[in-house]
Parts: sequence; C-alpha cells; structure tokens
Amino acid sequence: MFRKGFALRGNFLWSEGPDELNIRAGAVAVCDENGLCAGVFDELPEWYKTLPVRELGETLILPGYSDLHFHASQYEDLGLGMDLTLLDWLQELTYPEEARFQNAGYARNVYGRLAEELRAGFTTRVAAFATVHREGTEILMELLNGAGLAGYVGKVNMDRNAPEYIRERDAAFSLEETERWVAETAGRFETIRPILTPRFVPSCTPELMEGLGQLRKKYALPLQSHLDEQPEEIAWVRELCPGSESYAHVYDKDGLLGPDVLMAHCVYLTDEECALLKQTGTWVVHCPCSNSNVRSGIAPIRKYLDLGLNIGLGSDISGGHSLDMADTLREALSVSRLLWRLGEERYTHLSAREVFYLATAGGGAFFGKVGRFEPGYAFDAVAVDDGPWRRPGDDLSARFQKMIYRATARNVTAKYVAGKMLF
Amino acid sequence: MFRKGFALRGNFLWSEGPDELNIRAGAVAVCDENGLCAGVFDELPEWYKTLPVRELGETLILPGYSDLHFHASQYEDLGLGMDLTLLDWLQELTYPEEARFQNAGYARNVYGRLAEELRAGFTTRVAAFATVHREGTEILMELLNGAGLAGYVGKVNMDRNAPEYIRERDAAFSLEETERWVAETAGRFETIRPILTPRFVPSCTPELMEGLGQLRKKYALPLQSHLDEQPEEIAWVRELCPGSESYAHVYDKDGLLGPDVLMAHCVYLTDEECALLKQTGTWVVHCPCSNSNVRSGIAPIRKYLDLGLNIGLGSDISGGHSLDMADTLREALSVSRLLWRLGEERYTHLSAREVFYLATAGGGAFFGKVGRFEPGYAFDAVAVDDGPWRRPGDDLSARFQKMIYRATARNVTAKYVAGKMLF
Repeated sequence: MFRKGFALRGNFLWSEGPDELNIRAGAVAVCDENGLCAGVFDELPEWYKTLPVRELGETLILPGYSDLHFHASQYEDLGLGMDLTLLDWLQELTYPEEARFQNAGYARNVYGRLAEELRAGFTTRVAAFATVHREGTEILMELLNGAGLAGYVGKVNMDRNAPEYIRERDAAFSLEETERWVAETAGRFETIRPILTPRFVPSCTPELMEGLGQLRKKYALPLQSHLDEQPEEIAWVRELCPGSESYAHVYDKDGLLGPDVLMAHCVYLTDEECALLKQTGTWVVHCPCSNSNVRSGIAPIRKYLDLGLNIGLGSDISGGHSLDMADTLREALSVSRLLWRLGEERYTHLSAREVFYLATAGGGAFFGKVGRFEPGYAFDAVAVDDGPWRRPGDDLSARFQKMIYRATARNVTAKYVAGKMLF
Repeated sequence: MFRKGFALRGNFLWSEGPDELNIRAGAVAVCDENGLCAGVFDELPEWYKTLPVRELGETLILPGYSDLHFHASQYEDLGLGMDLTLLDWLQELTYPEEARFQNAGYARNVYGRLAEELRAGFTTRVAAFATVHREGTEILMELLNGAGLAGYVGKVNMDRNAPEYIRERDAAFSLEETERWVAETAGRFETIRPILTPRFVPSCTPELMEGLGQLRKKYALPLQSHLDEQPEEIAWVRELCPGSESYAHVYDKDGLLGPDVLMAHCVYLTDEECALLKQTGTWVVHCPCSNSNVRSGIAPIRKYLDLGLNIGLGSDISGGHSLDMADTLREALSVSRLLWRLGEERYTHLSAREVFYLATAGGGAFFGKVGRFEPGYAFDAVAVDDGPWRRPGDDLSARFQKMIYRATARNVTAKYVAGKMLF
C-alpha cells in the first residue's frame, strides 16, 4: 500500500520532561502525509516500507529550537550600542532603526537576510516582533513563511512614550491598523500567523490595552509583550498605573494573559505575579543574552520551573547579540550558575538537559504538539554535524553535552519544519 | 635601497589604553626585517617603497588576542562535565584525561588539533598548561611553535592531593623533571618558551614550592598558576597553610610572584592580596567563561583596573567551553554587566573597548612590546572579515562594536605573529 511521507535515519535526541532526555541511536523517525511524526523505530516498520528514507549518518537529530522572543526589526543593530543605557539605546539606536521599516524595500532587504539566517540555523519555530508598520509586518510574515519557518509575527502597538516618528497617532488608529492587519494575514500564510503585540505597558495607553483585549477576544488571538525586565522599568509602570496591583495585573485587567500569551523577560516577578502567571497559564520567555547585555539581571528560572510555570527561551535580538539559539542556551546555563553563586543557593543551576528541554519540548508546547519526536507531534527536525569535535569514545550522552557547549548554526546540516524539508 | 620586510594595507584598530581605541582607515602598516612594527602610515613612506604590500581590503585588522590561561590537555573535554561539581569534574574527567598525555602519540594527536584551531583564530600569543609529563609538554611546545603561535607553555608540577596515576612521586622528582625540561626547551623553539607551572597551592608540597622558587631564580623563569578561584578552594588553602596571611602570600613566600607571573582567576582577591599583586606587578588573568561554567563567581575587573593591576584574559579551556577568544571577550562583557546589576553598582560595567584592550595591548604586555601597531612592537596582526554583517552606513567605530559581539574565529582571514605570515 502506498503512503506519502518520508523517514529519516540517524541519532535522535529529544526531551520528555525538564530533566529527561530520550536518546535513540541509529533509529528511524517517520513523518506522515500530514507533516506529523508517526514515531521513532529501531527499523522502518513494514507498514512504511515504501517510504523514502534519508540517511543522516552520524549527525545528531533534534526537534529544533523555538525562539519565543525577538525583534526582527533590530537585526541590523546586532552588537551595536551595548555600552549605552537602555533609554539612550532606545532613543539613539532602536527607534530610529525601527522607523526605517516604514519603507517596504528596506523591510524586505533586512527581513530577507534575517529569514535566511534563521532558516540556516537551529530555530524551527518563532514568535517575532516586527514594528508598528502594517506593510512591513506582512513582509516579515511572507519572508519567514517563505523560508520555511513556523510561528507568529506581531505588528507592534505603541501609542505613547515614544518619539512621534515611530509612535502610532492614537489608540483608535493603532487598533484599526491592527484589525486590518489581522484580517489580511490570519489565513494567508501556511505556517506564519499573526499575534497581538503591545510593546509593553509604558508604550500603550489604557484605551489601546482595552481595545487589544477586545480584539483578542473577538478573533481568539494570541499575544506577546514584555514583563518585569528591569527595576527601573517596573518603577515606571508603577508610576503609570498607580491603581494596579502589579505590572502583570495591568495586562490581566484587559484579558491579556493566558496560555496563548508570551511575556518576555520576567526577571523580577513577585510571588503574586508568579501566582497570576501560573493561574492563567501565561508563558515566561527567558532571554538570558539580553538580560546580561542590557544589564537587566538574572531571571530565577529554577524557581519558575519549580512553580510549574510555562517557560521557553528567546534570543531577544538586539538586546541579545545573537540570533543563533545555541548562544541563548549557553547563556541560560551560564547565568543560572552565576545566580547560584551570587546569593541564591537555593536555586540549583540549570543542566544542559534542562536548557535543551526549554528550547525544544518546553517552549515548543506554545505552538501545540511541537518539540518531540512522538506520534502526533509536528515533524520538526534539525541535524547537527558534530564531526569537527567528536572523538571515537564519545557516547551519545557525551556528544549531547558537547553539542550544547560547542555547536553553532554552522553545524546544522539538515532541517525540517512541520514535515517540510528546508535543506 | 633594499630592505626586507613587508606592509599591509587596510583598516587598523588597536588600543592605546583601557578606553582609548585607535582607528586608522585605509592605512599602511609596515613590518621591518626583524618582525617589528615600523609604524602605521596614511601612505607607504618613500623609504619603504620597495616593500611588498598585501591588500587586505575592507577587513578589520587587529593586533590579535593574547590567551593568558588555558589547559591544552583538556581540549578533548571541551563541553563535557559542566554539570559536575569542581571536585567530581577533576576526579571523573580531568585527571583521567590528563593521564593520557603520558602517551606521546596521544599528545601529538590532541595537541596537533588544538594548535590547528588556535592557528586559525584570533589568538596570537598564549600561556598554556600542559600536564605533568615532560615529553608531552615538549610536544605541545613543538606543535604550537610549528603552528606559528608565540608565548609560553608549562609542564605542570603536582606532588600532592591528586590520584597517584597523575601525581608526581615527590618534590625532588618533580623538580628534576622540571629542570631537565627547562634545559631541553629554553632555546629550542623560535617563539615558544618554558614557564614554571605549579598547578595551584593544594597540588604542591611546601618543598616543591620552595624548589620552584629556587629554579625560578636560577633560570630567571616566568611562572603561571591559579589564585582565588572559588570560596571552597580558598578555604582549603587556608587549612593547608594555616600560618600564611593569604593565598597569594603562599606564592609570595617562595618568590613566586612578580611582573613575569600569571595568576589565573583572582575572583576573590582580598585588599591585602590586591596590594601584594600591585606591589609585585603580578598579573591577574580573568577567565570569565570558566568562572561562569564552573560556578566560581564574577571577578571584579573594574576594581582591579582602578587599582592599576596588570590584567589579561584567558579562555581557560576546559573550565571555559571555547578556545575562541571572541567568546571570552563577550563573556567578560556579560558578567561585568551582571556584577553591576547584582549588587556592586560601584563597579561600572566594562565597555567593548576595555575588553578589547585587555585582550590586546593589556594582556599582550605580558610578552613585552606586544599588542599595538606602534614602532618597536612585535608585528602581530589578525584580519577579520565582517562582510557578512557590515552595512553600507557603518563607520569603523560601529564595525568595531559589531565585531566584538558577532565575530568568531571563522571570520579571521589573515594572520601574522611576530612578523611571520600564518595565512
């Protein structure tokens, strides 16, 4: 009997839970005709015998990484302005750069190169900020979709506390543009969908937040924003919203929290905020490179894991300096070790298995059944060639550890997203 | 008139001081017949008109980085065992691996690949630990020299607190082997010389330390070791040396400090130790990747800079996870930012210019006139191709910043050490 689909043969690694790593050497993973994983087998089962099998040899095959927070429009600024304060960085560098995306040609150029870099690396799933510009945002969606990536892109909402040249004129205009953008893009791309994106509380008037809550309800839209990144920012939110119990409660008031909501950073969640995130299922997106670079601090991920919060990782370019998620995993390990040493000994540092979990099965769950080689999961796969540093005696557990610390996007040699071969 | 030598044309960047960056666009640097820099000029001076000029186009040309601390014998373990405690890491991984270097064939294989990686990247000058094995140490010296690198290699001394299979039998044997090794290698290699290398206080009996002090005096030898890496280690040293004022004073007692001495880590120097290092001119080698990975902490480099201590950087593989010094510079920036945020606000974070200084003119000074494009300095040069991320409007100052955050060893396209072309 003929079935469409295909199979990969090689060494598969995926997480079952935060500290549980499945390792299947020389196995065969089957992708069915719907782009879903049909399982991992020692040998190709009789039922699938007619499927083409791609031999991936000695490479390590992972489910790919989910990058749950980054600013696509800051791609050109990677590595710039890191010695500025956050406010100067926004005013001198980031807002002027974002303003350029009013020009569709500029957007196509920069987003095209960003999509190409993402396509070549570890990242399979994304949640990306564009800018306030509707047209530019649609171009980003088109290009990410064309590059074979899956996930969400957001048109930014921002109607206060930013220079006029980048701010939307008022809440009504911002909401109109957003609704039009949602209507134009909701079903237009195979693997990229819209996500509501209020920049953060200081950038959005209460009217805008309330309107976004209504849009969210009307169209059942997911949402992404920032939360508790820096003490100075939190103090500012307190000033702006004197009546609110906390920063997280400002979002909650308008129905902007939930299991389909990503909150970047969460370095300084209070116990009340933790409880609110837990209760609503809202996601913490840990962005360790950015939190180090722009001097935000270290998010206590061990605490959040123990509380059972939903957690994923984000590169957060260009607060983060690298679009390669391998760098984000390494920085997550590094800062968790420093947090343990610098005063929070109760928070055991993260292990290589745990950061791998956060990047794959953990963060992947934001997109549904994503991030595992198990029946019914989306067939995402990334093959990593560790030949340059593998030595004969290394078992797959050692090779996994070395990969976490040594691999970069350049070592990715084959890639699939939702059953589609990228290369 | 004919002179030997050559010239490079391109964009030169070098440090004059911690926060002073020289930028010379489209200039010509001349290397004289002794491998020394004769200056950087807008146009090739009349006097040098007959020299061959290599055009390096739009690349950025730096003096190369000095890696002042790493364990060459741990190269195969890069990325392994990072979830172990330091003690388990030594016993389970590091000592068994170091023991393999008793086999000359194994040493030649591993050190050969290490030398090849160093040759291809940013590093021009090194100070490396080998193992206790004399023959293996000589092989490392031969291979680094052959790869065109310059600097020091040390045969490790260790006669206590290590398993028998890796410990030297007693102080007398350790000293004999060391003296023989020094005699055999002192003038043998063009650019690699011996450096005394007591592993650290817990590994060396008082007799061994005293004997090393005598050898150091007799042959005017430089020295490298470890100091104040972790609180647990410092407490151990206090137990082992109850009569000593501090960890640093243990070295000082036998004449093991000085301007030709490198002390790796120095995360927890007391004020008395700072004064002693300052007075003796002893070098602090900052190893931020290792200090994060093995949970040592964050060295207050701002404080040491303000005190005027001699400071350089080290990759410290395999406590550090990367031999690429570009990663060490980025981690130095990252942890200095976290230290500022996590409680030491008086220590302003380091700037990109400052870590560049530490890696070039700063650390280079350990080797003499090294690390600047100035007359009389060794002609070390590394060309970096930033084409993959350069955009038309970037000036050299922006390109410098992006290079610090984005470049890896793979972007190095030309290299010279002491006037010799590597590629």
